[in-house]
Amino acid sequence: MTGAPADSRALRVAVLGSGVVGSQVVRLLGEQADDLAARVGAPLEIVGIAVRDVTAPREAAVEPRLLTSDASALVRRADIVVELMGGIEPAKTLILEAIDAGASIVTANKALLAQHGPEIYEAAEAAGVDVYFEAAVAGAIPLVRPLRESLAGDRVERVLGIVNGTTNYVLDQMTMHGLAFDAAVAQAQALGFAEADPSADVEGFDAAAKAAILASLAFHTRVPLAAVAREGITGITADDVTSATASGHVIKLLAILERTDGGVQARVHPALVSNDHPLAGVHGAFNAVFVEAQAAGELMFYGRGAGGTPTASAVLGDIVSVARHRVHGGQGPTESTYAELPIATPDSAVTRYQVRLRVADRLGVLAQVAGVVARHGVSLEAVRQGRVASDGIAELIITTHQAREADLAATVLELSGLEPVHTVDSVLRVEGS
Amino acid sequence: MTGAPADSRALRVAVLGSGVVGSQVVRLLGEQADDLAARVGAPLEIVGIAVRDVTAPREAAVEPRLLTSDASALVRRADIVVELMGGIEPAKTLILEAIDAGASIVTANKALLAQHGPEIYEAAEAAGVDVYFEAAVAGAIPLVRPLRESLAGDRVERVLGIVNGTTNYVLDQMTMHGLAFDAAVAQAQALGFAEADPSADVEGFDAAAKAAILASLAFHTRVPLAAVAREGITGITADDVTSATASGHVIKLLAILERTDGGVQARVHPALVSNDHPLAGVHGAFNAVFVEAQAAGELMFYGRGAGGTPTASAVLGDIVSVARHRVHGGQGPTESTYAELPIATPDSAVTRYQVRLRVADRLGVLAQVAGVVARHGVSLEAVRQGRVASDGIAELIITTHQAREADLAATVLELSGLEPVHTVDSVLRVEGS
Repeated sequence: MTGAPADSRALRVAVLGSGVVGSQVVRLLGEQADDLAARVGAPLEIVGIAVRDVTAPREAAVEPRLLTSDASALVRRADIVVELMGGIEPAKTLILEAIDAGASIVTANKALLAQHGPEIYEAAEAAGVDVYFEAAVAGAIPLVRPLRESLAGDRVERVLGIVNGTTNYVLDQMTMHGLAFDAAVAQAQALGFAEADPSADVEGFDAAAKAAILASLAFHTRVPLAAVAREGITGITADDVTSATASGHVIKLLAILERTDGGVQARVHPALVSNDHPLAGVHGAFNAVFVEAQAAGELMFYGRGAGGTPTASAVLGDIVSVARHRVHGGQGPTESTYAELPIATPDSAVTRYQVRLRVADRLGVLAQVAGVVARHGVSLEAVRQGRVASDGIAELIITTHQAREADLAATVLELSGLEPVHTVDSVLRVEGS
Repeated sequence: MTGAPADSRALRVAVLGSGVVGSQVVRLLGEQADDLAARVGAPLEIVGIAVRDVTAPREAAVEPRLLTSDASALVRRADIVVELMGGIEPAKTLILEAIDAGASIVTANKALLAQHGPEIYEAAEAAGVDVYFEAAVAGAIPLVRPLRESLAGDRVERVLGIVNGTTNYVLDQMTMHGLAFDAAVAQAQALGFAEADPSADVEGFDAAAKAAILASLAFHTRVPLAAVAREGITGITADDVTSATASGHVIKLLAILERTDGGVQARVHPALVSNDHPLAGVHGAFNAVFVEAQAAGELMFYGRGAGGTPTASAVLGDIVSVARHRVHGGQGPTESTYAELPIATPDSAVTRYQVRLRVADRLGVLAQVAGVVARHGVSLEAVRQGRVASDGIAELIITTHQAREADLAATVLELSGLEPVHTVDSVLRVEGS
């Protein structure tokens, strides 16, 4: 049996899941109990921790008497339900049951919010309870409160985020130590920064879910996960990294959210970032989110985007907020969708590009390439000739001004069929300028 | 006469002051009226703008019919009072009158909050109204909400902040372009980054007020302005900057807030920051605040710390928050002082130091200097000999491990009396490692 609160003023907290984050949340709720009670105005008492297998070995902080496999019963006798199981089901059903029973919700579940957020927010608003989710995006970094509260009087124009620590670690290792992609992934796996199957990270799925959540917050518009254009980093080679370094850039996997004439643009892809840009200095598994707002100008938020303890910090901050509302009254911001901006199609994105080609090293090739580019309405910023290999093949690096994705794609298609062009080695967007 | 609200649901906003920030707040309240109404749930209506001289020329956005010189009458017919006059009086009296009349307060007044915050917070709590002040520290950068809400479940250990844009601009110009201090200040003045009398900035008074506010938030303890040890940047020379660059550092004016064994330490002084540290990359007039929390780890917040429009962004975010409370119920966090940590004396500060000396270039001098340092219980990390001038005087650069300020001061005193020591050119703390 799980316990009932000993102190009648205590707020009953149910924790769903006892993995890397859940066990740290339980530990900190115990260790910081006095501080938390002072900040909330009432003690917090864990009334149960729902797990799949109550007999599995656990961290010392997780008291066996609190474990239960009946999550559905647990959420109905809690004031605050902290969902840290991840995945869509049973998390979604349990959260809706908890809301139905009048509990406030704290969750770190980005996949669930990106796919079913609106349904959950609507249920919470109807029931008059809070849904807080600071930990769902960029781990410990305060980002949800700044976007939905601090910038509530401003107009966000653009968000550029490094929101996946695994891919940032991999790209950083490739940049700093010249590792190949596979070697960098293997190292990330050895250090616990990447899963055995790294595809959710390296293919950009994790970043895309966070992008959908951030876009919805930034633009007061529902941005479904399906609207986020997504491209991972599996195509990035050591040559791409070397070439980026040579041109004063680093390659980062970015979540890019923009307010454009055509509506909200949301995309995740690797991009060249100038060494001068604050995001270029974000190393290892750190995350950072760069925000451009009309009045505030440029802002950046930096910190640990993953890990049990950092993520637990964000979860605890949310627990304090929703607990204070239960003690002192009031409610946090609800979903804001009034702007209802259209969602722009991915191919309407306008950005700068860098294209690396290998071409025959002979007179007139550069003019020929420049002619193709111009014919597609793409404006050249620079053409730089790189190394000439012993076989008479030269590297040509083209940087464009802002161009439409469709025009660039047509340009690349024609270039790759051009007689003196041997290969198109890479096409990368240049962001942050 | 100033207007009464046309819409009965409208919240009445009174703006005190129509300077650089006030005029931008008024402009944005007008331009973003529809967005703000959607976010708040009710329209915001400016019922008056209090100024000293109603006949002075104003920005176009400031409607003459709204101007009044009777601030005291104005605050009594407002739901939200936005204080942007600065200074202690009449701002303090007007805010207390407004609270007494039941209005919520938004202010950017760091000097007032650092000196009289507790009186204002207590009055507000007794009246059940909000006091929000995001713009008082680091302009547009969301910092108050992250500290008092996002990190409410964590334990802040240390804050290192670049919280004064003028001094950061001056030091950055000295670093990047080799300017002397006076020339850099003159340039800052010419560009409008520094006042005609720059002492509030360059002597560290402005940063000290922000340090007191941040320390109180971070440690749930009242930290009075008088407890902040303060040293400005007027003693920083071009030689200091050159020497810092040579050792892989930049010089920054930092607000440093630490939880130590002896209690809360709060100090403002120039310090050497390693080029690897995220704060080293903060250029120009930008601000950034680096926070170390027990669970979250390292966080950084970066953006524009001053300027009418960026500061107005923070003010508007606060207006939306307090307005939402008036429409939907609830109240923001009140002053949190439960921890009541002792305030440590400045000379108990423990940090690393770099000391530059000019000494006779002869055998045994280094050993003699090292002996003095050791005798005061200070542990050496490195001794590096710099340039030897044509007159046989050598530069000696000593870096210590963590040392007590009192021990270091005694060391420097003895060193400066030592026969082979010609001068002690500088003593700088090394922070952020």
